[in-house]
Amino acid sequence: MNPTVLLPHGCHIGTDKACHFSVWAPLKKEVILHIVSPEERLIPMERSNEGYFQVTVEDCPPAARYYFNPDRAGDLPDPASHFQPEGVHGPSAVVDHTTFEWSDSGWENPGLQDLILYELHVGTFTEAGTFDAIIPRLEDLLATGINAIEIMPVAQFSGNRNWGYDGVFPYAVQDSYGGPEGLKRLVNACHRLGIAVILDVVYNHLGPEGNRLPQFGPYFTDAYKTPWGDAINFDGPWSDGVRDYFASNAIHWFHHYHIDGLRLDAIHAIFDNGAVHILQRINEAADQYAQQTEKSVHMIAESDLNAPRVIQNFKAGGYGFDAQWLDDFHHALFVALYPEGKDRYEDFGTVEQLAKAYTDGFVYSGEYTKARKRKYGASSAGIPGFKFVAFIQNHDQVGNHKNGERLSVQLPDSHLRIAAAALLLAPYIPMLFMGEEYGEERPFLYFTSHSDEQLVELVREGRKEEFGHWLGEEDPPDPQAESTFRACVLDWSKRTQGKHRHLLAWHRRLIHLRRSHVALQNFNKTGTQVDVLSEHAWALLRQDETEKSQLLALFNLSDQPLPHTLPQNT
Amino acid sequence: MNPTVLLPHGCHIGTDKACHFSVWAPLKKEVILHIVSPEERLIPMERSNEGYFQVTVEDCPPAARYYFNPDRAGDLPDPASHFQPEGVHGPSAVVDHTTFEWSDSGWENPGLQDLILYELHVGTFTEAGTFDAIIPRLEDLLATGINAIEIMPVAQFSGNRNWGYDGVFPYAVQDSYGGPEGLKRLVNACHRLGIAVILDVVYNHLGPEGNRLPQFGPYFTDAYKTPWGDAINFDGPWSDGVRDYFASNAIHWFHHYHIDGLRLDAIHAIFDNGAVHILQRINEAADQYAQQTEKSVHMIAESDLNAPRVIQNFKAGGYGFDAQWLDDFHHALFVALYPEGKDRYEDFGTVEQLAKAYTDGFVYSGEYTKARKRKYGASSAGIPGFKFVAFIQNHDQVGNHKNGERLSVQLPDSHLRIAAAALLLAPYIPMLFMGEEYGEERPFLYFTSHSDEQLVELVREGRKEEFGHWLGEEDPPDPQAESTFRACVLDWSKRTQGKHRHLLAWHRRLIHLRRSHVALQNFNKTGTQVDVLSEHAWALLRQDETEKSQLLALFNLSDQPLPHTLPQNT
Repeated sequence: MNPTVLLPHGCHIGTDKACHFSVWAPLKKEVILHIVSPEERLIPMERSNEGYFQVTVEDCPPAARYYFNPDRAGDLPDPASHFQPEGVHGPSAVVDHTTFEWSDSGWENPGLQDLILYELHVGTFTEAGTFDAIIPRLEDLLATGINAIEIMPVAQFSGNRNWGYDGVFPYAVQDSYGGPEGLKRLVNACHRLGIAVILDVVYNHLGPEGNRLPQFGPYFTDAYKTPWGDAINFDGPWSDGVRDYFASNAIHWFHHYHIDGLRLDAIHAIFDNGAVHILQRINEAADQYAQQTEKSVHMIAESDLNAPRVIQNFKAGGYGFDAQWLDDFHHALFVALYPEGKDRYEDFGTVEQLAKAYTDGFVYSGEYTKARKRKYGASSAGIPGFKFVAFIQNHDQVGNHKNGERLSVQLPDSHLRIAAAALLLAPYIPMLFMGEEYGEERPFLYFTSHSDEQLVELVREGRKEEFGHWLGEEDPPDPQAESTFRACVLDWSKRTQGKHRHLLAWHRRLIHLRRSHVALQNFNKTGTQVDVLSEHAWALLRQDETEKSQLLALFNLSDQPLPHTLPQNT
Repeated sequence: MNPTVLLPHGCHIGTDKACHFSVWAPLKKEVILHIVSPEERLIPMERSNEGYFQVTVEDCPPAARYYFNPDRAGDLPDPASHFQPEGVHGPSAVVDHTTFEWSDSGWENPGLQDLILYELHVGTFTEAGTFDAIIPRLEDLLATGINAIEIMPVAQFSGNRNWGYDGVFPYAVQDSYGGPEGLKRLVNACHRLGIAVILDVVYNHLGPEGNRLPQFGPYFTDAYKTPWGDAINFDGPWSDGVRDYFASNAIHWFHHYHIDGLRLDAIHAIFDNGAVHILQRINEAADQYAQQTEKSVHMIAESDLNAPRVIQNFKAGGYGFDAQWLDDFHHALFVALYPEGKDRYEDFGTVEQLAKAYTDGFVYSGEYTKARKRKYGASSAGIPGFKFVAFIQNHDQVGNHKNGERLSVQLPDSHLRIAAAALLLAPYIPMLFMGEEYGEERPFLYFTSHSDEQLVELVREGRKEEFGHWLGEEDPPDPQAESTFRACVLDWSKRTQGKHRHLLAWHRRLIHLRRSHVALQNFNKTGTQVDVLSEHAWALLRQDETEKSQLLALFNLSDQPLPHTLPQNT
């Protein structure tokens, strides 16, 4: 049975094996379903009260391809297509979610605080760039101690090379990655091994090529501006259908793909001035799903707001996310490790800031930042550490360097080890970026494969402009070139070689320590103390709730030895 | 001593009698103070760290006139001018706030729940249209039972006829009303009689003529759109100065004018996606002011959000307003009284809605509304009644009728009495619109007196367009014509005549009952019950906390008698 919070967007095959088509087009007079294969048919849809057009087709086989034609605008793919086997410009395909043979009925989603997250881009994680190609590598991840992969967005985007944030079919699974069946096989395999799967979803914009949503309904509004243009219409006239579309999308992944949690991209670009913020609405839907199915799901936000409301509960006026990314921890640690990084993170650079990142969370909790030209943030002191995901690299922090440089090419081996320890001993949920665990040296560059030549040129120019003013004369690698993408594919063979092998072992040891030492299980901030020892050194003390079990980690980024006397109470 | 939350915007004369000039212009290289009288002087200002330019002039007399010249853009009035004696396009004048002889040191601001509010437009309340002309009428208001006037905005606007929402100097007091001294005399007189003064302030936009703020700093942002164009920049780069400017403006009125509370106009058009919403910031400043001075102040919002967060406290994630206007109560009651009103308030029309307005507050608490084309609001059930200001008329609800019709020309006398009782026996803070108490029949029309001819034509056309499609062929009265304004001036002589005298007495009785009956003092919503008796009749039961004291009011809008048996427990 479908959970009640899953609304019938797109095409669903019921237990009756009939195809139920549904599309929201509140301002259209008619919508015609155009089935193009295996047998061409034109079927007028029926309008329901809330702006949906619906029709049930008894004899429409799975994999049938179809378009919708709203008010004779022509054949358009389904805005809630579950599969675009011929890419963003082709027909949608009927997907039968009742046939996949799941073997994960015994699976239980680990608690958020037990996760070691691993961010992964399907296209560059392996040579093949598919979901299936990931499966053989899961055992190695597991052996390293990783128990959750976080997959960068898989919603259908134009072409077959993209970070995923240009998706234009939020319900579809990228064809070149292996489509719906591929994703299911991956999740099933993960669950078999004890690995949770978090999926990155984008609810703040749609990509620049192949976005057909505006041709169906008022999905966008010019009331708010985002970096990508008009904002998604979450609070204006006709926004109910838009709200339902995105809230139901969250449930779509849980229900049809057994996804264990979502990471919502850039929630600071989601605007809603209404009485119930769409992010609350989405998190309420996730809660209801969890209640109805007795499954737990994790809701994680990427937030550039430094606002406690993101992770506060509804009663406290919050959006109710389980956790959010803690960028400030990255920035503080990164600039401490790599002082040249101050070019990019000009408001960071002291060990005191790193100390605050450990003990409070947000480093900027109301202070002025030069980058934003305003006071920024509010205090997160007292919010438990399991509400934050920390990292020392991620797709953005690596990929938004001009040459996609990872820490492994910026830092000596000693510092890579310090970075790993600083992260894995922190009172936060740690996240590694694929390859980080063995010091992958290949870059993670910005890449696209749009088919619209004008757009390609715009993206190229935008990239040059982004880096032009502060990173020298040379142009950044061409985002559209296949070689740019190819250069990013992980070199898995390194894991077993020399310094890489040692770094991998170091990660394994740290994760083991994290799991086994009781002081590291305590996410309560009162159990974390940081002493600044010098401009380049700090002491991190973790202790359990009883303060009986303690762990002291000493970090020294300088070449000079630093005498340190253990405090008396340790 | 100035409270610390009052920042030095504009020109202040200290106890040293020197003039301290301060202007925020963060992106300017220089600002020159140009004193034009009594003696011309050009004085370069000094730039401080946070984008302020400041200078102290020892020998600058009060009433001296001056301009600021930022980066040689020419003479511009002070964005925080306290007085524009020659209108919006003239120089600013130095105001000495230390010389007014206040006689209200014994004044204590009544609690919000004790207020009978009276909304008043200075220009049309009397023939003279000044603050001073109001004073002789205060005793009559007091005799009616009114103990708080709410003054429509007085910030300097273009010309001398305006509702006040076109103000362009948020710190200045309209010259044609009597300027700073006039307002002080009015407040002082009110306090002498025991009348509180609430001031309407506009923090969501500036008027269309004479707005010089953008020539000084980034006060506006195109990130959000309002009905008046670009939004005020409360969360973008350089927003700290803008936030300080408006938060300090609230304190300006409390401190220099002894204002007892503010009514913030249309807070739904104030956008802030940052960690601390500007409305929280303003209410925090008001709290701090109250603490530092041991004076209480009331913060009231006009909100079109039906969102509990507006009046929830900071801990609950709210903006922390003491109260907000309850439009739904008006709409439900108005359409019940005047079924033709459904043309304008299409989502209202049942007595059940009125019952919900009494017992819950927001009638739309998540339901779909046709006017908004979306689900609207969240529940306010359980929020005490003193968090809401209710009314059956106000400047907007009257003035936004094409011909500015008041209830007195729409309803028979019997229904005017029912309306008054429905309002004054409600568990909310009641607000009358000037003249309502005696059934003033003169209209309250939309009027302006801009000097920019192009703008005048735009306003005229806008007004025609607003009414064109649903209120017949005839054009609405010309907003710019002085006769339109004149037609709105109250006819105070009516108060003592015939039906007007009786209606006034009826208001007086109801207010007396409200003050004297213990059941009417209970703002807890559990003490209010409404039974729908028919399509046109309802019973309102109010009771005190102990449920021992009860008041039952029966309302019947039809011509037919309706039998009603008292419930057993009464």
